[in-house]
Amino acid sequence: MTRTIVASASREVVIGFNQPFCVIGERINPTGRKILAAEMVAGNFETVTRDVLAQVAAGATMLDVNAGVTAVDPNVSEPPLLVETIRLVQSLTDLPISIDSSVSPALSAALAVAKGRPLVNSVTGEVEKLEAILPLVKKYDVPVVAISNDETGISEDPDVRFEVARRIVRHAADYGISAADIVVDPLVMPIGAMGTAGRQVFALVRRLREELGVNTTCGASNISFGLPHRHAVNAAFLPMAIAAGMTSAIMNPCRPQEMEAVRAANVLMGNDPSCGEWIRHYRDVAPAGSASAAAAAPATGGGGRRRGGREGRRAAS
Amino acid sequence: MTRTIVASASREVVIGFNQPFCVIGERINPTGRKILAAEMVAGNFETVTRDVLAQVAAGATMLDVNAGVTAVDPNVSEPPLLVETIRLVQSLTDLPISIDSSVSPALSAALAVAKGRPLVNSVTGEVEKLEAILPLVKKYDVPVVAISNDETGISEDPDVRFEVARRIVRHAADYGISAADIVVDPLVMPIGAMGTAGRQVFALVRRLREELGVNTTCGASNISFGLPHRHAVNAAFLPMAIAAGMTSAIMNPCRPQEMEAVRAANVLMGNDPSCGEWIRHYRDVAPAGSASAAAAAPATGGGGRRRGGREGRRAAS
Repeated sequence: MTRTIVASASREVVIGFNQPFCVIGERINPTGRKILAAEMVAGNFETVTRDVLAQVAAGATMLDVNAGVTAVDPNVSEPPLLVETIRLVQSLTDLPISIDSSVSPALSAALAVAKGRPLVNSVTGEVEKLEAILPLVKKYDVPVVAISNDETGISEDPDVRFEVARRIVRHAADYGISAADIVVDPLVMPIGAMGTAGRQVFALVRRLREELGVNTTCGASNISFGLPHRHAVNAAFLPMAIAAGMTSAIMNPCRPQEMEAVRAANVLMGNDPSCGEWIRHYRDVAPAGSASAAAAAPATGGGGRRRGGREGRRAAS
Repeated sequence: MTRTIVASASREVVIGFNQPFCVIGERINPTGRKILAAEMVAGNFETVTRDVLAQVAAGATMLDVNAGVTAVDPNVSEPPLLVETIRLVQSLTDLPISIDSSVSPALSAALAVAKGRPLVNSVTGEVEKLEAILPLVKKYDVPVVAISNDETGISEDPDVRFEVARRIVRHAADYGISAADIVVDPLVMPIGAMGTAGRQVFALVRRLREELGVNTTCGASNISFGLPHRHAVNAAFLPMAIAAGMTSAIMNPCRPQEMEAVRAANVLMGNDPSCGEWIRHYRDVAPAGSASAAAAAPATGGGGRRRGGREGRRAAS
């Protein structure tokens, strides 16, 4: 059974097939957030601090940390900013972190100051990336996210994406890195642009798990890109991906609908013993529906009612 | 590809693996609803009428009709009441119906007045039931729900439930009824009582589809029986079951969260071409989150943002 161990100085998290889903909080990321980027460059970490605390409070399992502000030379500017951000995050929470950079000097500097066993996010199947990043992964004995694209770009053919993942796993093995330390991102396409995107990723996750024995992750909200009411699409996608075997996602834990979907999926996969986490979070939620609807069909009786006879028989048998 | 055809006088619905999920509205059912039962016995169909119209408006694909009020002799009292209820439902909507009774004379009388091709709900693996109901199913050339329990009750072992389903399919074949006209209910146990209930039913649905080639259904809300905030559990269960291959459910279409989950699952399975139904229903929904959160991270940009580079590469490749 594949277990990917991630840890901070004092807390260990296992990503695995029979574990609660690992929610990697995506908020510490200046990409596309101009104000946040300007703040970070100016040494102002108020928004970062707020985003760390909000994600912890919302129930993230670990936090992604990205300091990729646009710069003339990221090789020079990104390492100190990423180091400073990681130091801050580690001072605010004991959740494990994911170091999100494709700039090798930044990853290198970050790994030197990160406590515990951070996740490196990410490597691709591009030879240049593999040869720059896998030695760091090996040196620090940490797990890494492997994105299934290579020099030819992202294939729309899931079989090609699977082969890229397989090649990364083999390449990592050459460095002495085990498959348990590779978390494959099979790449989620927007369903609005590609109607097969959902079935593709469910099938890919199943294959990655059964044939390569690896844990998986994704940028969950990509699936709903361009659609209205996208949180509801995400909230259906996550349980479906989890049922297919997905074990983590990079997502916004501050969205209650998505977190509720993840917690319900944990219950339904049998990964929330005695529904303890579910009950702890939701025991005080009033039944859904209007007051009159609730009066006509109480939530606790309404659903089981139709099958009352069957439930009765089950209880008796 | 298995296609179960259900129809009213003027509208046909296909239950199938590449079809939008079939939502069988469960509300026309006096079981456990004392006031409704009393109304129906007294010939007052106001609540029934309201429940029909509400389920149609909410987007049900078809409507279950049950007239099983408690009586001294259901063989005498249920047939005329079921006939009257069906006639009323057929006058109010052109949605196909599911005739919900285990009383043979009631089923027989109902089939004589039901227009189109109703679904019979249900037969079990009990020999007496099979011999009473399958001849009716054959005579009227209609599909039937097959519940996977028999004289020994409902087994907690999914393999036993699978074998009961297989036996019903074989028994039906002896009557000249094809597997495409059997919609198997693998029986959903409450996850609060049995932590394996979710994984069990997902695996069972997959087997029923792959090995028997049958469509499937369930009383969806059974899964959350006894839990708080159960609509959120149902709303995660439905997409997971749909991803496993479930093609219909008997459920309450008047619960927006569950219907939203079903519609999102249709999108994600590629069964809502160009996301047309999704956009039609939800195009005017405001992005989730507070106004300030929305301002800081617009819903359309927020999710795709983190993976901006990857999306960019995909667009370029």
